[in-house]
Amino acid sequence: MAYKDEQLNEEKVFKDPVHRYVHVKDQAIWDLIASPEFQRLRRIKQLGTTYLTFHGAEHSRFNHSLGVYEIVRRIITNFQGRPHWNNEERLLCLCAALLHDLGHGPFSHSFEKVFKLDHEEYTQQIVLGNTHVHTILERVEPGFSQKVADVIAKTYADKLVVSLISSQIDADRMDYLQRDAYFTGVSYGHFDMERILRVMRPMEDQVVIKATGMHAVEDYIMSRYQMYWQVYFHPVTRSAEVILSKILHRAKYLFENNYTFKLKPTHFISFFTGNASLEEYLKLDEGIVSYYFQLWQEEDDFIISDLSERFMNRRLFKYTEFNPNQQMNDWMELYRLFQEAEIDPEYYLVVDSSSDLPYDFYRPGEEEERLPIHLVMPNDDLKELSRNSDIVEAISGKKRTDHKLYFPIDLIDNLDDENLKKKIKAILADKKV
Amino acid sequence: MAYKDEQLNEEKVFKDPVHRYVHVKDQAIWDLIASPEFQRLRRIKQLGTTYLTFHGAEHSRFNHSLGVYEIVRRIITNFQGRPHWNNEERLLCLCAALLHDLGHGPFSHSFEKVFKLDHEEYTQQIVLGNTHVHTILERVEPGFSQKVADVIAKTYADKLVVSLISSQIDADRMDYLQRDAYFTGVSYGHFDMERILRVMRPMEDQVVIKATGMHAVEDYIMSRYQMYWQVYFHPVTRSAEVILSKILHRAKYLFENNYTFKLKPTHFISFFTGNASLEEYLKLDEGIVSYYFQLWQEEDDFIISDLSERFMNRRLFKYTEFNPNQQMNDWMELYRLFQEAEIDPEYYLVVDSSSDLPYDFYRPGEEEERLPIHLVMPNDDLKELSRNSDIVEAISGKKRTDHKLYFPIDLIDNLDDENLKKKIKAILADKKV
Amino acid sequence: MAYKDEQLNEEKVFKDPVHRYVHVKDQAIWDLIASPEFQRLRRIKQLGTTYLTFHGAEHSRFNHSLGVYEIVRRIITNFQGRPHWNNEERLLCLCAALLHDLGHGPFSHSFEKVFKLDHEEYTQQIVLGNTHVHTILERVEPGFSQKVADVIAKTYADKLVVSLISSQIDADRMDYLQRDAYFTGVSYGHFDMERILRVMRPMEDQVVIKATGMHAVEDYIMSRYQMYWQVYFHPVTRSAEVILSKILHRAKYLFENNYTFKLKPTHFISFFTGNASLEEYLKLDEGIVSYYFQLWQEEDDFIISDLSERFMNRRLFKYTEFNPNQQMNDWMELYRLFQEAEIDPEYYLVVDSSSDLPYDFYRPGEEEERLPIHLVMPNDDLKELSRNSDIVEAISGKKRTDHKLYFPIDLIDNLDDENLKKKIKAILADKKV
Amino acid sequence: MAYKDEQLNEEKVFKDPVHRYVHVKDQAIWDLIASPEFQRLRRIKQLGTTYLTFHGAEHSRFNHSLGVYEIVRRIITNFQGRPHWNNEERLLCLCAALLHDLGHGPFSHSFEKVFKLDHEEYTQQIVLGNTHVHTILERVEPGFSQKVADVIAKTYADKLVVSLISSQIDADRMDYLQRDAYFTGVSYGHFDMERILRVMRPMEDQVVIKATGMHAVEDYIMSRYQMYWQVYFHPVTRSAEVILSKILHRAKYLFENNYTFKLKPTHFISFFTGNASLEEYLKLDEGIVSYYFQLWQEEDDFIISDLSERFMNRRLFKYTEFNPNQQMNDWMELYRLFQEAEIDPEYYLVVDSSSDLPYDFYRPGEEEERLPIHLVMPNDDLKELSRNSDIVEAISGKKRTDHKLYFPIDLIDNLDDENLKKKIKAILADKKV
Repeated sequence: MAYKDEQLNEEKVFKDPVHRYVHVKDQAIWDLIASPEFQRLRRIKQLGTTYLTFHGAEHSRFNHSLGVYEIVRRIITNFQGRPHWNNEERLLCLCAALLHDLGHGPFSHSFEKVFKLDHEEYTQQIVLGNTHVHTILERVEPGFSQKVADVIAKTYADKLVVSLISSQIDADRMDYLQRDAYFTGVSYGHFDMERILRVMRPMEDQVVIKATGMHAVEDYIMSRYQMYWQVYFHPVTRSAEVILSKILHRAKYLFENNYTFKLKPTHFISFFTGNASLEEYLKLDEGIVSYYFQLWQEEDDFIISDLSERFMNRRLFKYTEFNPNQQMNDWMELYRLFQEAEIDPEYYLVVDSSSDLPYDFYRPGEEEERLPIHLVMPNDDLKELSRNSDIVEAISGKKRTDHKLYFPIDLIDNLDDENLKKKIKAILADKKV
Repeated sequence: MAYKDEQLNEEKVFKDPVHRYVHVKDQAIWDLIASPEFQRLRRIKQLGTTYLTFHGAEHSRFNHSLGVYEIVRRIITNFQGRPHWNNEERLLCLCAALLHDLGHGPFSHSFEKVFKLDHEEYTQQIVLGNTHVHTILERVEPGFSQKVADVIAKTYADKLVVSLISSQIDADRMDYLQRDAYFTGVSYGHFDMERILRVMRPMEDQVVIKATGMHAVEDYIMSRYQMYWQVYFHPVTRSAEVILSKILHRAKYLFENNYTFKLKPTHFISFFTGNASLEEYLKLDEGIVSYYFQLWQEEDDFIISDLSERFMNRRLFKYTEFNPNQQMNDWMELYRLFQEAEIDPEYYLVVDSSSDLPYDFYRPGEEEERLPIHLVMPNDDLKELSRNSDIVEAISGKKRTDHKLYFPIDLIDNLDDENLKKKIKAILADKKV
Repeated sequence: MAYKDEQLNEEKVFKDPVHRYVHVKDQAIWDLIASPEFQRLRRIKQLGTTYLTFHGAEHSRFNHSLGVYEIVRRIITNFQGRPHWNNEERLLCLCAALLHDLGHGPFSHSFEKVFKLDHEEYTQQIVLGNTHVHTILERVEPGFSQKVADVIAKTYADKLVVSLISSQIDADRMDYLQRDAYFTGVSYGHFDMERILRVMRPMEDQVVIKATGMHAVEDYIMSRYQMYWQVYFHPVTRSAEVILSKILHRAKYLFENNYTFKLKPTHFISFFTGNASLEEYLKLDEGIVSYYFQLWQEEDDFIISDLSERFMNRRLFKYTEFNPNQQMNDWMELYRLFQEAEIDPEYYLVVDSSSDLPYDFYRPGEEEERLPIHLVMPNDDLKELSRNSDIVEAISGKKRTDHKLYFPIDLIDNLDDENLKKKIKAILADKKV
Repeated sequence: MAYKDEQLNEEKVFKDPVHRYVHVKDQAIWDLIASPEFQRLRRIKQLGTTYLTFHGAEHSRFNHSLGVYEIVRRIITNFQGRPHWNNEERLLCLCAALLHDLGHGPFSHSFEKVFKLDHEEYTQQIVLGNTHVHTILERVEPGFSQKVADVIAKTYADKLVVSLISSQIDADRMDYLQRDAYFTGVSYGHFDMERILRVMRPMEDQVVIKATGMHAVEDYIMSRYQMYWQVYFHPVTRSAEVILSKILHRAKYLFENNYTFKLKPTHFISFFTGNASLEEYLKLDEGIVSYYFQLWQEEDDFIISDLSERFMNRRLFKYTEFNPNQQMNDWMELYRLFQEAEIDPEYYLVVDSSSDLPYDFYRPGEEEERLPIHLVMPNDDLKELSRNSDIVEAISGKKRTDHKLYFPIDLIDNLDDENLKKKIKAILADKKV
């Protein structure tokens, strides 16, 4: 039998706390899961530094990737025999779902910003490069790895396939909302996925929703809204993220300024110099990062040592609301006062912003636009969700942004110059810490 | 106000997926949680290698420790005002609950066996040594750290206090059964803890159970039984544990035989030589271990490189049932054949045994004996649980042991000598792989 | 000891699937639960005819009343010792919570409309009249029953007490949303009540919410919105309600027109004549109604027999969207055609409307206005919820109404006059049945 | 298309709190659910008087019957294409599952005992008699109703089909354990049904279990054990059942002794005389029973009036442990004292016994024997469960019996003769009420 059609003797299952069981029948899927590149996702947390706020959030991207695969598997099981659905694309959908996050590194958000990386770019390299994953995909059929890469890159011709893993209601989002809610323990993030799966219908270039299922979709969108503000943008998590970024910045700065590390940061050098190879990228997991952060606590440079110790021991920055439009003078004054206090404001006075767009109708030309969700009415017309739902209409296209100012209250409290300390605290207090 | 009585301005809570919320009011508890030694528990998984079997089991000992604290907090809230309960012991109970696992290192089971360590010994050192935790405890009152250490060591005079965290139905077990069930996603491990807490009564030297709550306790004991065999002793987990132990053995062997590692295994050396200091012990977390295992994949020594690669990429050993009483000849034959095949049987042919005693009545003099569970009857008599419960009686004192033989099927499959291969596989097949 | 302060020897608990346990310590609460008037609530379903749509919704008002009591108990346990909270009102709050729905009869909605009854009026009579409940309340202290009646009627002077059971976020709503979700099995209706309880604060004349808990309240309001449209206003439930009303109308009409029932409808007569005594009202439970509906299936009058049979055997009316503003002509035409077909449109062509106002800010003078929800900001200012929450703002004050037209498709399908049948179906089809 | 093969245009679902959704595709199933005989099950509680102990237990047999259908549907979906499975039996299995409890009347347990009825006999009559259900079944194919009746009666030739709904691990038990646990809210009754369904295999004359699933089955058996003792045999429920039986006995006695009821008990007469027709049986639902019990509260006969009032208002009998082997003298003495006190012991001094056999291996010739559960070992041998499971072995074949003595403490407390009262209470106290 062709490898493409090869099935396991007996279906295998993974016990999954969110979907109960993840079912695998295809040999190719089984082999992909066993590949070193996929196993590496066990060493990368799904939610980066969120575990420092919600201690349960220690789950890995491995978990999430299996979940996305399982949801797509269930969706296309329902699609069997429906118009518009081409079952030839089945294995492609499953592979793309499983592998869509393969290029994530440790604490992607901060690493990408500091080192100008792009995890999507690395996903492409892993799928197409000299890897076990690539070899397995090419065994399915020559050129199959390119197809998988295209689906993940959203450039694949059949947009219906693409929409399963990247749309405003895709398997990716449905898994992470539920999974992150489960592991953090928050009560948001729940919605009736089983119902949504039942009302999903394949259409020409997208998955649409039977109008009778609209309320389940509303609930999903509200879950997403709540998860963003309650979990993903939690200020304590962002505080950890700020510190993490500043550690990376400082390490790069020290390297560029020929500082001598006690142990040469071998794994980081190609990131500092901006030419990390795929092989080097794949080695960088959270164990490695943790190893260096532990070492760096003992460096002579105060800043890298202090920040590393803060991260490892969760001595985070405090924060206050900050309005960049009205409070720039305050910020400039604080900047000056921090300098006077010899607390380097480049590392210790940080404005961080989060923003979210819970749902959007289609606005061509904007970056990151995603197709809106369409309902199929009883008469087969399509209707964009926000035109039918009061709730979704109410939040549609409304971007919400939140700015906060982060700083180390302990360093300020320890200042000897009482006058200076009082001045700093007065400005901060005004913003109600 | 004395530090001992200091309360936070406002109660703090941790969102916990198992107990919903963990509540903290005492300044001392808050400070202990923030200490580096306690934060370190975030870098040590509660279930060691179990995540390689149940992918959800990525939760840390930090999680569990908060949970045990919370259960003890709830128990003693119920004890307020009851006879036998001395509320002066409140903070002591809470601290001991929180800190009872403080000495655990990464993959304790294997590390302890290979390097002859004892995590309980390290817990004592952390509580009593030169640590942040020690300083905080001594602020509560001079000598308080010794009391905490005694409770954890079960030598504290007031056995009622001890029994909260070490008995056959203590907060430790109640937390881990529920927590491990939650994160693995298995349906075992659930019991009605709220009911058990309601029927717990302080007695002179133990916590006893009102007879009306017997069935909830039966359910708890069954949960424990099932979790042991379904999760804790799962053969896939044991396979990973076998490989882990063999990596450590090999590294020690190489070190002792003056092998030159590509990077000197600084963090391990004092473990190889058997004189790890507290400071060195505290540095050893899973990030560090993962770092070295990644490096060791590239060592020239085949065995350490192969085993490390297996562990990191989850290429585990297969297993078969093995009865050491009846099958020693088979094992000796296999040992010889492995040698002939140049697959070192010291590392690649491993018998591993698990055994559990789900509940035990009291048998003085046995090691690790724990007090049996006592019911208080309506007439205030105490009655040992197994005398009242058919189910518990049925399993009481019955030790169950399971032996398995682990081996690398891939290495065997790759043997060139077809005859040798056939002989090995015949013996293994006979045991139904 | 005064009865008022009398406590049970040992706390009693009811196992509750929603709140796990309902805890009772006060002798008075225990006695009220045991009273015949309260036990009667077991024979009245919480959700009337909803069980014909969601088969799980068979739970009684007894269930819900215990739940409301339990939530109030938890709220005021948290209020102990806080400013603005007068613990003298504790037992009053608990009694009012427990008894707030005492006057509900079977299928209240339809009965009240058809017979011009008011369950709140009956609650007052039960609390103040010659009942076991009244006797128990007066044992607490003379005049106590009047206080309880006042709290339920919202006329009690201390508005903080009133707001616990009737505000936009009261114990009544929090219980029914969760309970109805649990028994129907829908995934809506869940919100983090434990968090809401933690952020509730007593204020002068209301319960307010700490601003940090805003998102939990948003979630609660969304739950309410979803439950209304997904469960409470479900068109199949409304269809059953329409039939039920029409049975009652017909029975009253027949009685008024001297029709001879096979068995005299003793229990109904005082309702037909509009002078039901308290004693008669208390006898009318769902068993009685069910008894008569079963008998009426065998009446000679086609309409009462047909409608009763429909209700008992769940042969409900079909429905179609209906816009009273634009489709009155259709309706009038249908009315005429139904008459021609000898299907009495007074009973068989029914427009039913539902509307909900998910959240409202304060608009004095409107009927049924309820105080809006206020947040306490960190600086102790109060801020009305919709001014701080985008989501709530979006739906605030927006009334949504849904009209449907109900009719018996089977009777139409069975018409002999094909032409007439076709005409009727054409008009109905146009509205997309 | 033959009715037998007719499918609904679109799959219909029922929202079910236990199984999430119940799926229906067959027109015949849809029609059976809509039949009056099946709808009648909504008016019969699944757990009889248990709602007086666990207030959540108000769910009907309608609920449960849908659940059993759904489980069988899932089992045979998994069986598709497996050896031993004849898909021709699909619809038969589904119909038998749905209808297996069709003959249940209100409070079957007591009614059957008092009036010598047998609900299984009535199920046969409904399936085979002049009913809507019968008509629908015969439309499937002539003689089909007889097949359904045979499966339910366990006389059908294909024992594999029979075992789906009556074996020691059938769909009936799997549904009621989970459903009753859900509605009562107890934490017992949970087990991993999804896993059990995955390991069920059709064999020649039974469903067997893959050995790897043994622990899930152990868990199921323990659930059953716990549910029996914690829920089904709860002494408060039995107290209500005792009163219910005594009401029926008294009514029959009065009827037989020509007592004149205020309202002739029309619905009961044929039960008193022992010749209830099918039509009369079908009319008897809980609404009718509740109607009469309400009326009987106002009868002149003290006993029927008192017992009816007790049942309606939940003024139950108290109970004490009772050992019929050792305490017959006590009982005889009490009997005499009750007579002396003019509290008729025939109605007010009742010994009630419960017993359960949680699991049994096969003992031919015993009544109600059910096939034991068999495991399929990896080598395809069958092995009886208790031979492989320590836990099941421990409880296998062990019948546990519990006797209690029920009496009205209030009547005793109200005795004027202090001496008599003291004597009675002394005997009762000795047994520790």
